[in-house]
Amino acid sequence: MKRKDYLQNPVKHIKINGTLTVDQLMQQFKNSGSFGAGRLAVACDIYEKMVRDKECTIFLALSGAVVPAGMRTLVTDLIRSRLVDVIVSTGASMVHDAIEALNGHHYKGSWNVDDHELYKYHIFRIYDVFVPEEDYVRLDYEFAEMYREVAAEKRGESLSSNEFAWELGKRLKDPDSILRAAYEEEVPIFIPAVRDSEFGFIHWLHASQKNQKDILQVDAFKDVPLICEICGKSPKNGMIVIGGGVPRNTVQSAALASKKALDYAIVITMDRPETGGLSGATLAETISWGKVKSEADKVMVIGDALMIFPIIVASVVERLGGKFRRTPYLKLGRLESDGE
Amino acid sequence: MKRKDYLQNPVKHIKINGTLTVDQLMQQFKNSGSFGAGRLAVACDIYEKMVRDKECTIFLALSGAVVPAGMRTLVTDLIRSRLVDVIVSTGASMVHDAIEALNGHHYKGSWNVDDHELYKYHIFRIYDVFVPEEDYVRLDYEFAEMYREVAAEKRGESLSSNEFAWELGKRLKDPDSILRAAYEEEVPIFIPAVRDSEFGFIHWLHASQKNQKDILQVDAFKDVPLICEICGKSPKNGMIVIGGGVPRNTVQSAALASKKALDYAIVITMDRPETGGLSGATLAETISWGKVKSEADKVMVIGDALMIFPIIVASVVERLGGKFRRTPYLKLGRLESDGE
Amino acid sequence: MKRKDYLQNPVKHIKINGTLTVDQLMQQFKNSGSFGAGRLAVACDIYEKMVRDKECTIFLALSGAVVPAGMRTLVTDLIRSRLVDVIVSTGASMVHDAIEALNGHHYKGSWNVDDHELYKYHIFRIYDVFVPEEDYVRLDYEFAEMYREVAAEKRGESLSSNEFAWELGKRLKDPDSILRAAYEEEVPIFIPAVRDSEFGFIHWLHASQKNQKDILQVDAFKDVPLICEICGKSPKNGMIVIGGGVPRNTVQSAALASKKALDYAIVITMDRPETGGLSGATLAETISWGKVKSEADKVMVIGDALMIFPIIVASVVERLGGKFRRTPYLKLGRLESDGE
Amino acid sequence: MKRKDYLQNPVKHIKINGTLTVDQLMQQFKNSGSFGAGRLAVACDIYEKMVRDKECTIFLALSGAVVPAGMRTLVTDLIRSRLVDVIVSTGASMVHDAIEALNGHHYKGSWNVDDHELYKYHIFRIYDVFVPEEDYVRLDYEFAEMYREVAAEKRGESLSSNEFAWELGKRLKDPDSILRAAYEEEVPIFIPAVRDSEFGFIHWLHASQKNQKDILQVDAFKDVPLICEICGKSPKNGMIVIGGGVPRNTVQSAALASKKALDYAIVITMDRPETGGLSGATLAETISWGKVKSEADKVMVIGDALMIFPIIVASVVERLGGKFRRTPYLKLGRLESDGE
Repeated sequence: MKRKDYLQNPVKHIKINGTLTVDQLMQQFKNSGSFGAGRLAVACDIYEKMVRDKECTIFLALSGAVVPAGMRTLVTDLIRSRLVDVIVSTGASMVHDAIEALNGHHYKGSWNVDDHELYKYHIFRIYDVFVPEEDYVRLDYEFAEMYREVAAEKRGESLSSNEFAWELGKRLKDPDSILRAAYEEEVPIFIPAVRDSEFGFIHWLHASQKNQKDILQVDAFKDVPLICEICGKSPKNGMIVIGGGVPRNTVQSAALASKKALDYAIVITMDRPETGGLSGATLAETISWGKVKSEADKVMVIGDALMIFPIIVASVVERLGGKFRRTPYLKLGRLESDGE
Repeated sequence: MKRKDYLQNPVKHIKINGTLTVDQLMQQFKNSGSFGAGRLAVACDIYEKMVRDKECTIFLALSGAVVPAGMRTLVTDLIRSRLVDVIVSTGASMVHDAIEALNGHHYKGSWNVDDHELYKYHIFRIYDVFVPEEDYVRLDYEFAEMYREVAAEKRGESLSSNEFAWELGKRLKDPDSILRAAYEEEVPIFIPAVRDSEFGFIHWLHASQKNQKDILQVDAFKDVPLICEICGKSPKNGMIVIGGGVPRNTVQSAALASKKALDYAIVITMDRPETGGLSGATLAETISWGKVKSEADKVMVIGDALMIFPIIVASVVERLGGKFRRTPYLKLGRLESDGE
Repeated sequence: MKRKDYLQNPVKHIKINGTLTVDQLMQQFKNSGSFGAGRLAVACDIYEKMVRDKECTIFLALSGAVVPAGMRTLVTDLIRSRLVDVIVSTGASMVHDAIEALNGHHYKGSWNVDDHELYKYHIFRIYDVFVPEEDYVRLDYEFAEMYREVAAEKRGESLSSNEFAWELGKRLKDPDSILRAAYEEEVPIFIPAVRDSEFGFIHWLHASQKNQKDILQVDAFKDVPLICEICGKSPKNGMIVIGGGVPRNTVQSAALASKKALDYAIVITMDRPETGGLSGATLAETISWGKVKSEADKVMVIGDALMIFPIIVASVVERLGGKFRRTPYLKLGRLESDGE
Repeated sequence: MKRKDYLQNPVKHIKINGTLTVDQLMQQFKNSGSFGAGRLAVACDIYEKMVRDKECTIFLALSGAVVPAGMRTLVTDLIRSRLVDVIVSTGASMVHDAIEALNGHHYKGSWNVDDHELYKYHIFRIYDVFVPEEDYVRLDYEFAEMYREVAAEKRGESLSSNEFAWELGKRLKDPDSILRAAYEEEVPIFIPAVRDSEFGFIHWLHASQKNQKDILQVDAFKDVPLICEICGKSPKNGMIVIGGGVPRNTVQSAALASKKALDYAIVITMDRPETGGLSGATLAETISWGKVKSEADKVMVIGDALMIFPIIVASVVERLGGKFRRTPYLKLGRLESDGE
């Protein structure tokens, strides 16, 4: 590379002299092009490219407090307009979704409170969000009944985590529910650590109930072939990571296992690489594994995903128009049976 | 509180004028008592207190690159001397342990390399550690065979993640293996997201093999009752968290489910609370849930756990003497059958 | 506080089904109200309140790579419309401004380059921004001449850092220059660590030149009375911090010294409190000192200020209308002489 | 590079089976060699190498709450045994040192307190450290008197920040004082942002006093030639950074200005590079500027410097022996006059 090649594109300064749409601001960030703002603009471009790429299957990996952050309807809308094709989630986010589907709520609160008082009041805290215990208790009993019903139908047959998610979605009425929307739209939701959430406690409750004839069984490994098959059959694959953790690892592992390194990758996280943990690992590192292509469109935005992802979505929705509905490449929900 | 109550203990300055043992330095940190050094000293004291509390069951939650960081023997030794009673781990850490048990290695490398070259060389990178692909391939085939063997023995019976871990440990010869030591010492290893690691890929391989009569089945929820029972039957419970993620959540959820809020808690992490994620959540927040007692001995050390945990262990081992072997309160390995 | 008081305001979920203006998105963030998005919405509200408060003097504390981030015109526009009244800056930001005023540029680059090659090419790197050495060399010589000229005028009289900034601004032609705009608008720019930047090297150059009759003198303490007087005479004071460091400390110290704890405070930073450093210190901590009022409107947004501040400005400008020009309470530029 | 070159050094696992000295633990970290522990071990080796290099001048850049962290005596001892040659500090750290020299104290406290109560009690908080206001008031009056005395001696002559520091050190009796030790040992202390601390307020107090004949004058730029000359005359230069900010920038700028890129560099910080700020900038980036040599021994340790630096010192002091006193290459204190 020659010297002049390094000095091609001057930073253009941001100009705000009236009302800007979100995407107009993102275009300014693209023109300035450096540090966090530059990376955010790149993330918007990559997401748009994924959406417009007719051969691409889009994986959304969810960790952190997605629903308490107010992103529930956002995710539901992405599912319904098929701006995402596959969801990989922690158990907790689906629990939070289910709580609201049963008319529970997350309340705006404060992180600076007396937690012992909250404890005595039976209020649970998630940073600056409060949830009343009764919303969890209602979930426990309604879902234990749901587990019983599913178990009775399945008669000892084990479910995969995605089948489990759809069985829940099928039984929820709330159209704003992520689980419901995914079921209706046949968007798979993988929950690789399903046991590590209230769903695990509910299972305990369910299994302890008297006269329980059938116990719901979820096989830990049964969702592996489907997610690998989706990656494998899709000409291209893209990943958007909110946070990191098990959901990020699951998507990347599926790409590796199916020998289909990802073509697009957006990671939004506060984690950093130095401790060697997966959540903060650079996208460069994933190249060595064959999880992401070296020529992939990829970017890592360092920041609070629960603030940054809505900005990206707003920018991309503006580009697409509000009525946009994407046609997915794969009929994902039926893949597994197709494959047999 | 009166004014003078705030002004009781002056910071005493650190004095290093010759050789110090690790614990002597920690005593200095206790005397200075502020910021990271103060919290590190508190963590040493809490761990010592847990170990000396004959009624306490100690949970070690492992996430991040524990084995590539050189902490494999450290964890094995903690198991053998029973300075930990229960391990909750990501799948990845147990995969890394198994790789070394099969004579594979993690190599000291650099984060500043050409990842595409590594890819072409079939070398995987974990920040500044390299692992050759052949070590994974060997693991895949030897463990697929192990899965087959276990499946043949179990004949369709589902295992819990901890039973799965012991079945692996039983079949590994290496005395330095975490899985082996846990099996021998009857220390349960829970792997709540077992599918999210090479163990998931190996299962796919195993299940795809021709003439496979029995397929290994791991039930996603089956380990829930045991971990809750351990918490429930133990008069006191303590937790040490390396990193956060699913392992931290699993321990805390067991405490909540069994209505035995933790008596001791040490969290070592780089994560912070502001995004609402679990890994960075303060220990104050856990009080609201009933996961940790408000009067518990607890501390959160902000730092690279893979550097800080060995310092804590060195300090506590120095206090206990190298020969120390703790007698656990519960015979944990047999709990489940006892319970029936 | 009663139980029901904690459970008043449910998180309302973000809805993006078409084009949103930046402020419309901020209103959604206000409705969701939690984590980073909630704090960002609060920051927008506080800044609007500051601007509409006719008795408030607004201090903008600048650290980090403000100009390479593309925020140069943004700051200039804030000065010209008087959405800020006083600037406290590192030397580096004013150096970067001056480089562009002399037709130099910051170029969009990459952090992932061979720095030794850049060194050989005489290109300096600021994360993912490149600056050619010749832009610094031009600055050095033109500013050394400027120093000479100022020194000749002042004849041994020492300047304060803000007088120094205005003398530079007076001599720059570029209307987009922060220094120029501040000079024209009589907005003081304090540079408490002026020596710690290229301005220090230029001074060395200037002082080493042959036949140098007068040496430019900047008194380290001379700007203290003015900034304290501004705080003291202003009925209310507000602070916006980009990053932290010396500029944040200088504003807070002025508030303390003048016994006018701040009424409004917005801090945008990636720094955290645990190490005890000033940049990451909570706004709660500042209350103990009397730097910020306990009843102040205040918020700390954890994130990359160079991405977040433009969002806040866009939201507030949208509320005010693009033509808005604020009338400041104090004639700041003349304060010092008024005082005598 | 060939494939096998990447796979040379297996991670050796940490073994703790009895009492370890701090350096024995660091040797284990060297053998494991990855992530934070590996970088910490490298930092110990580099500091040892700097100390044993007879041609090297060692700069210690101090930011953050060094004295409240209990590192006051540690720094004093480093000065007296000449394990550091030059100090570059924030004003605040020298203020904290002076407070203790005048029999004030920093008290161990808690970050989780009612800051408004502290305010009413006239107690200042620095994260989990408390300082009573009267210690500041005493400082203000005793130092204002000191300023008067120095001003009377200097009769209008401006001091550099390092001359100012020595004038203070000369007047303090406490042998544990950093300022005192530096004065006695002729170790320069540069305070590039001297105005941004209680020293600035004291100046205001001093200048406001009635019948003040001479006002103490500190020239903002006057310390530039000396620090550049030290770098320039020293065959080799090394830097240890606690935190970052202005002190780090000042050392690096001196290296650049004197065309003597640093031969050794250790940076200990929680800051990261992504926002473009100086404190978190990688050492690779400094190569492009010519601030650090590309072949320098250099490492960046991500962590709380106030916990990590004492560990490094303990390890190096153990290697050197407690009686070790280093002979500096330069007689730094007299450099300036030599140069004329």
